[in-house]
Amino acid sequence: MTKREKNSKLWGGRFGKRTDSLVESFTASIDFDSRLYRQDIRGSIAHVKMLRKIGVLKESEMKKIVAELRRIEKEIENGKFRFNPSLEDVHMNIESELIKRLGDIGAKLHTARSRNDQIAVDIRMWLKETIEELLGRVVKLQDAFVSLAERHGDTVFPGYTHLQLAQPVMFAHHLLAYVEMFERDKGRLRDTSCRADELPLGSGALSGTSIPIDREYVARELGFARVSQNSMDAVSDRDFLMEYLSALAIMGVHFSRFAEELVLWTSCEFGYIRMGDAFCTGSSMLPQKKNPDVAELIRGKTGQFFGELISLLTLMKGLPLSYNRDMQEDKLPVFRATDLAMSVLEVLDRLVRSLRVREDRVRRTLKDSAVQATDLAEYLVKRGVPFRDSHFIVGRIVRYAEREGKPLRSLSLEELSEFSDAFEKDVSRIMDPLGSPATKVSKGGTSPKLVRQRVKYWRKKLSRETG
Amino acid sequence: MTKREKNSKLWGGRFGKRTDSLVESFTASIDFDSRLYRQDIRGSIAHVKMLRKIGVLKESEMKKIVAELRRIEKEIENGKFRFNPSLEDVHMNIESELIKRLGDIGAKLHTARSRNDQIAVDIRMWLKETIEELLGRVVKLQDAFVSLAERHGDTVFPGYTHLQLAQPVMFAHHLLAYVEMFERDKGRLRDTSCRADELPLGSGALSGTSIPIDREYVARELGFARVSQNSMDAVSDRDFLMEYLSALAIMGVHFSRFAEELVLWTSCEFGYIRMGDAFCTGSSMLPQKKNPDVAELIRGKTGQFFGELISLLTLMKGLPLSYNRDMQEDKLPVFRATDLAMSVLEVLDRLVRSLRVREDRVRRTLKDSAVQATDLAEYLVKRGVPFRDSHFIVGRIVRYAEREGKPLRSLSLEELSEFSDAFEKDVSRIMDPLGSPATKVSKGGTSPKLVRQRVKYWRKKLSRETG
Amino acid sequence: MTKREKNSKLWGGRFGKRTDSLVESFTASIDFDSRLYRQDIRGSIAHVKMLRKIGVLKESEMKKIVAELRRIEKEIENGKFRFNPSLEDVHMNIESELIKRLGDIGAKLHTARSRNDQIAVDIRMWLKETIEELLGRVVKLQDAFVSLAERHGDTVFPGYTHLQLAQPVMFAHHLLAYVEMFERDKGRLRDTSCRADELPLGSGALSGTSIPIDREYVARELGFARVSQNSMDAVSDRDFLMEYLSALAIMGVHFSRFAEELVLWTSCEFGYIRMGDAFCTGSSMLPQKKNPDVAELIRGKTGQFFGELISLLTLMKGLPLSYNRDMQEDKLPVFRATDLAMSVLEVLDRLVRSLRVREDRVRRTLKDSAVQATDLAEYLVKRGVPFRDSHFIVGRIVRYAEREGKPLRSLSLEELSEFSDAFEKDVSRIMDPLGSPATKVSKGGTSPKLVRQRVKYWRKKLSRETG
Amino acid sequence: MTKREKNSKLWGGRFGKRTDSLVESFTASIDFDSRLYRQDIRGSIAHVKMLRKIGVLKESEMKKIVAELRRIEKEIENGKFRFNPSLEDVHMNIESELIKRLGDIGAKLHTARSRNDQIAVDIRMWLKETIEELLGRVVKLQDAFVSLAERHGDTVFPGYTHLQLAQPVMFAHHLLAYVEMFERDKGRLRDTSCRADELPLGSGALSGTSIPIDREYVARELGFARVSQNSMDAVSDRDFLMEYLSALAIMGVHFSRFAEELVLWTSCEFGYIRMGDAFCTGSSMLPQKKNPDVAELIRGKTGQFFGELISLLTLMKGLPLSYNRDMQEDKLPVFRATDLAMSVLEVLDRLVRSLRVREDRVRRTLKDSAVQATDLAEYLVKRGVPFRDSHFIVGRIVRYAEREGKPLRSLSLEELSEFSDAFEKDVSRIMDPLGSPATKVSKGGTSPKLVRQRVKYWRKKLSRETG
Repeated sequence: MTKREKNSKLWGGRFGKRTDSLVESFTASIDFDSRLYRQDIRGSIAHVKMLRKIGVLKESEMKKIVAELRRIEKEIENGKFRFNPSLEDVHMNIESELIKRLGDIGAKLHTARSRNDQIAVDIRMWLKETIEELLGRVVKLQDAFVSLAERHGDTVFPGYTHLQLAQPVMFAHHLLAYVEMFERDKGRLRDTSCRADELPLGSGALSGTSIPIDREYVARELGFARVSQNSMDAVSDRDFLMEYLSALAIMGVHFSRFAEELVLWTSCEFGYIRMGDAFCTGSSMLPQKKNPDVAELIRGKTGQFFGELISLLTLMKGLPLSYNRDMQEDKLPVFRATDLAMSVLEVLDRLVRSLRVREDRVRRTLKDSAVQATDLAEYLVKRGVPFRDSHFIVGRIVRYAEREGKPLRSLSLEELSEFSDAFEKDVSRIMDPLGSPATKVSKGGTSPKLVRQRVKYWRKKLSRETG
Repeated sequence: MTKREKNSKLWGGRFGKRTDSLVESFTASIDFDSRLYRQDIRGSIAHVKMLRKIGVLKESEMKKIVAELRRIEKEIENGKFRFNPSLEDVHMNIESELIKRLGDIGAKLHTARSRNDQIAVDIRMWLKETIEELLGRVVKLQDAFVSLAERHGDTVFPGYTHLQLAQPVMFAHHLLAYVEMFERDKGRLRDTSCRADELPLGSGALSGTSIPIDREYVARELGFARVSQNSMDAVSDRDFLMEYLSALAIMGVHFSRFAEELVLWTSCEFGYIRMGDAFCTGSSMLPQKKNPDVAELIRGKTGQFFGELISLLTLMKGLPLSYNRDMQEDKLPVFRATDLAMSVLEVLDRLVRSLRVREDRVRRTLKDSAVQATDLAEYLVKRGVPFRDSHFIVGRIVRYAEREGKPLRSLSLEELSEFSDAFEKDVSRIMDPLGSPATKVSKGGTSPKLVRQRVKYWRKKLSRETG
Repeated sequence: MTKREKNSKLWGGRFGKRTDSLVESFTASIDFDSRLYRQDIRGSIAHVKMLRKIGVLKESEMKKIVAELRRIEKEIENGKFRFNPSLEDVHMNIESELIKRLGDIGAKLHTARSRNDQIAVDIRMWLKETIEELLGRVVKLQDAFVSLAERHGDTVFPGYTHLQLAQPVMFAHHLLAYVEMFERDKGRLRDTSCRADELPLGSGALSGTSIPIDREYVARELGFARVSQNSMDAVSDRDFLMEYLSALAIMGVHFSRFAEELVLWTSCEFGYIRMGDAFCTGSSMLPQKKNPDVAELIRGKTGQFFGELISLLTLMKGLPLSYNRDMQEDKLPVFRATDLAMSVLEVLDRLVRSLRVREDRVRRTLKDSAVQATDLAEYLVKRGVPFRDSHFIVGRIVRYAEREGKPLRSLSLEELSEFSDAFEKDVSRIMDPLGSPATKVSKGGTSPKLVRQRVKYWRKKLSRETG
Repeated sequence: MTKREKNSKLWGGRFGKRTDSLVESFTASIDFDSRLYRQDIRGSIAHVKMLRKIGVLKESEMKKIVAELRRIEKEIENGKFRFNPSLEDVHMNIESELIKRLGDIGAKLHTARSRNDQIAVDIRMWLKETIEELLGRVVKLQDAFVSLAERHGDTVFPGYTHLQLAQPVMFAHHLLAYVEMFERDKGRLRDTSCRADELPLGSGALSGTSIPIDREYVARELGFARVSQNSMDAVSDRDFLMEYLSALAIMGVHFSRFAEELVLWTSCEFGYIRMGDAFCTGSSMLPQKKNPDVAELIRGKTGQFFGELISLLTLMKGLPLSYNRDMQEDKLPVFRATDLAMSVLEVLDRLVRSLRVREDRVRRTLKDSAVQATDLAEYLVKRGVPFRDSHFIVGRIVRYAEREGKPLRSLSLEELSEFSDAFEKDVSRIMDPLGSPATKVSKGGTSPKLVRQRVKYWRKKLSRETG
């Protein structure tokens, strides 16, 4: 024990000189990996139980270590544990403390284990739990969209392509588009979690161990679906983190698209959506301003998702097998992107629930527009005009209306008939833009009936998921 | 028909002026999306059959269109079709030609369809097929690694952490680490393909259509697993492309890691691997050089995978629903990254099969090193020394050997006993680094027996996959 | 000479086997670096003249080589030169042809030179010329903005923060903001060019040469400002390309910002700007659409600038000195980003000149808004009210007007006086939003007078630059 | 004053409801922008003096505000100031406190100013100072390289291309390559600083102000080279930050290249460099390990520079003028990348000074290699053999030596003469690889004499810079 005490580093046997303190602070990861203390301790407890099972530890030794680890966990939770940067990381901090308290018994904890497989198991446990939490928040956000869709069940809204008025859609239909996107995000997160659901512990530093450990037992203890099959890969693999950050980056794109729409919709010119004062802020100089800051910030923060992804991809580029210290830095982008995603999901959930359509403005815009033009073209198709011709004819009609300064809906049958003989009296039925969605019959389309069904579908599905 | 003829643009009805030619070339995508002609024609044929089924087209009309589309396809294949940039894209080029040839009948093709859902179905079909081809190439590459592992079944190789000699491993074990990585790459590609396996056609420009189309029929015709459920999402969604580029970026990381190892292993200093002359090139100035150019280029091209991913993520950032013209540019990064992945997979396959270990150099390095140190520490653990102490003791022994200028394996029992009483005669069994892998007993570890089993596992699995 | 002929690779002396053809096509760069033929030949001519000067070549030899190189250049220009991929790159293609034509004399060209310093000088020459051309196009684009500013000298336009109406500004002021941005882009490009203006030729493969070459002479011949001072750095350095791609990425941000504004301004809801039909395209399904495709494409292409930058940064990450083959791939992102920048600059120039403000819509919006609120607050400040109080007071007034459903400008002195005693009759002078810009007196502000001066400043400066 | 007190937000006049607390924490930037307090206060003091100069404030008011601001600054420095997240940012925290303490007088501070121009001036001041500090650290790092070059003045070292032994170089020459790189980094940072050296204050929210402020005075007070000329651009511009992050990303590439070399050089196989124990760490499992962790971490952290750059570029993409709240998030990537650069510069400086070449290993490697092959080829050139032939001949000689298992230097004149008649007795002079550098005569090359001159040049230049 004396040798051990003389050297504060647990790996110090081979070294002649102590580490430089600047170097200590440069290499330490305790600032960010202390966040993994729960997983680290859970992993150690499972490891210790296994060491008992295979006879490396006595029952009493195992119990003492487990009890002490649980005590340390509580101390950390209560802010009573002092992490020491010169002990580098969360693993060394906890193990050192254990040895300080339990002596020889504690010194047995790290048997048949390396920090390389230890950090790998910690971060995989953390990721699986984090994804569970994220999924819960995404479900909540989907619920916010569905709730808003329910509240605005009958609202017709301008649909855009190229940010040009294109066709009227049900506002609920527009909202459900985001519910679909977030559903795919959930799928990606789940796939990532499944692929990460593999116990790396027991891989040692890179080659395994000569101690007859029972990895299947540890996997069961820690709730892993399977054990990893190649020790070198197991300690070198960060695929699951790159895949995770990719999934968040794509979700970030979805956030940014909706945020952009909010900024547009709350502009004076669009003015289609009202956002509560609680979600806006004012200007330090301009007294009249009410800014959609939350939406802008969500949009702006998208870049960080991309940045963290690039940060990790670059880190991994060109690293030879197996573990390299570079990989310590994988946690920073992962933690940052996670915290960001969590907070965006939370604030967006609240924000969505606060939105209301300004129906008067929406209706006025639609009425004065030519958004029913496609319906008119399809009307002609049903009367036998080839689509390319009907498209051309209606294009001419729109130009005529524009030149005359009339809204499309106000054109008379006489005027229409100037452009095609196929128009009949019943064309009036489709001249009102607000009636357009109801003409749609295709699956997945914006017909109010189909949209209502889809709202119900989501309501039911989400209820099951929040269970 | 006359009106149609006067205007070369199929959407020109509403326009007073013709497009500027500089603008035409700036906006045209025919240079790169002509690559989708097969998918575009297949999609149109399925669409036309459906239009017949629901009565929009007569049987004879349908047949004429289908026959003409097939004729056009063949002409494109034979290089006899002239794409016209002023017709913007692959869709308009084919449709215009059809109308030119079939007149009114051709003008019915685009009924109940928009380029927005048309390009979405084309690119999804293309992606599904492309992923199939990529998967085939990854399987071949895995086979190359497994074949090399079989050939070098008994070769012990230096294992590294931090690019420092760490522990001896089976060379086959090292190779199988890459087989694992590529297996995960396959998983990601398959997941992407599944998520993309959804028919967007029938979504119209964004809201569906008032023509009673049968989307399930089209999905069956085109081999899609299901139809999309939200028309606005369906034309705005490029998740599957972002996910695809993420999967390629991660695979690119794997390429770069192996490429880096090849560069290291073929350096004069390492010298562990011989690569055939066919895979190296010389220097224009230095006569003695034999450079691992292929490996370097693979490593260098990694950056492009990241770049294309960032390009697409940025493109999608902040786009309001639904379709925006920005999205036309999604194809460039996707095609580029695909071509790159295809060629790297092909050349790496060949390269891997050409590798040979220089066993003499490897053995010499291992013999002179201290890579059996961990075995020594675990030896002590088995004799009751707590791991932290045994780690410390062996650290001291390594320093001693280094100072004495002796390889670790040459230390006598007397010398070892200076550091711990626990050493006994049988320690000699683990003093030979080359015997180290055989001492490993843990699942997933580098024991020759387990590695052999794993090689067999992969051999069988890959055989099944190549059918 | 016979040995030379037997082996098509100029570096083949050391090799036993020929290169694999798949490998040839994988490693060849001739597809993209043939673009550098002019620079390559210019560089070779300068090199050859120098070799003559120091006596390595005879006058007659030099003249023959120079004449033949010029002949090859012309053949390439006329499309009569056949590049051979198995000769890898532009350097080898030209040198091989020279040797084929001139025999022993041609075989002397590569004396005291390596492809490492040769490609470095080619790409630097190319970059300097390319930047000159880019600068010219940026100047033209600035001219387009200034011309539009001149045409709309008196137009008041809504100014935004947070995409909320903030304060009226001169439309010319808004346009000149972009002129400022592009001026900084020019500065960055010029700085890059200066830093790249250093002759690397003469660095050999990495260490220089034992032939007493005259690098200063070559620098003068090729128009370089100075010679590089460290041969290892000179062949390993790609800083100038990373810096160049950074400059283009930042310029890409500027493109995207203006493109976004165009998309907004031409939307039905904003409707402040008219863009000629020549710069819009239609929809394949929606007959009424007129889409700002060019602006959308410019916005979408921004991502590619970022992607190419990341591609190159990643490529360079972690490369040991000196030249590595990875660096061959530097040209792809550089050429792609360049072509993109060139075409965006060209199309944007034309597009800007086609823009017109829809003054009626602009005036109506401004009149009905509260954009003069800050002027009101500053009015109070001038009457002794502390700014924070005046800001608060005007905030209350805006709320009042909103609740009453009145435009701010219609409030009477009585109504205003309810909120503060400091209002007097002369407040009416600042109640008209259209008069707001004229109240601004600060340098750099939007006062019509100052803006006019600034327009003149730019007009003069740009005239000088275009000569 | 009562109204002001009732509402804690200084912009609250227009609002009916208070901000949600979740929103407050989501939108607050005080966590990171409090770092700008010094610049914020300096800026406010200059602003207040100017307000006095133009008569908006009385002398006594100005003095009170200045004194109180200085008091607040000291309190912040001593950790006695409590920042309040519900006051959003550093500006509002300081201004609110001032108003709380000084009442009406404090309420005048924000006259003719917006947070938009205020944050712009703060961050520009901060950037200029930060770049000064970075430049100082880069100079120190250059000094470390030069000092090491001086200590190893005569050491010959293996030079590489493609990580293959290429030519012997002076170790000092290799080190000076990095000094050149860092010199360019300094150039980029200085250019960035110059372009940022422009006072934005006085631009108001976006359009300037109707108060007759004196911006030139403020510029002089704050040490800015000039005032900005377009208020909309001035509050919207973040070019200088993108340019700054680009410069850091390129410097990060340099860090990563040297870090990679250190990892290689300290590997067992290369073994050319000794790094003190103080800069290495051990393994938790492998007792014999001594890992170059600091170098690995530097390499790994490179990715973060790229990530932060992408984060900011993405943030700025597609933002319409003028200020948008997204831009608040510009500071996070900028601060993170700065802190990272500062710490890498510091630790690398120390690390470089600790390096020593293991001359015995280096010499052994060089002696046994064929690195003098190019010298041999140039020898033949000097005897009239065209370079391409001499290159081919020496290639054959190298193959011969390799097959015979002899080092190149051991070949006899007889053996050489088998390959060319041009070899003569004096060829022996260039057969020793260690003598190779001395044969180089070209400027910028590795000749010991020229390298020594260059070391002196840098020594002198750096001395001047450190003053």
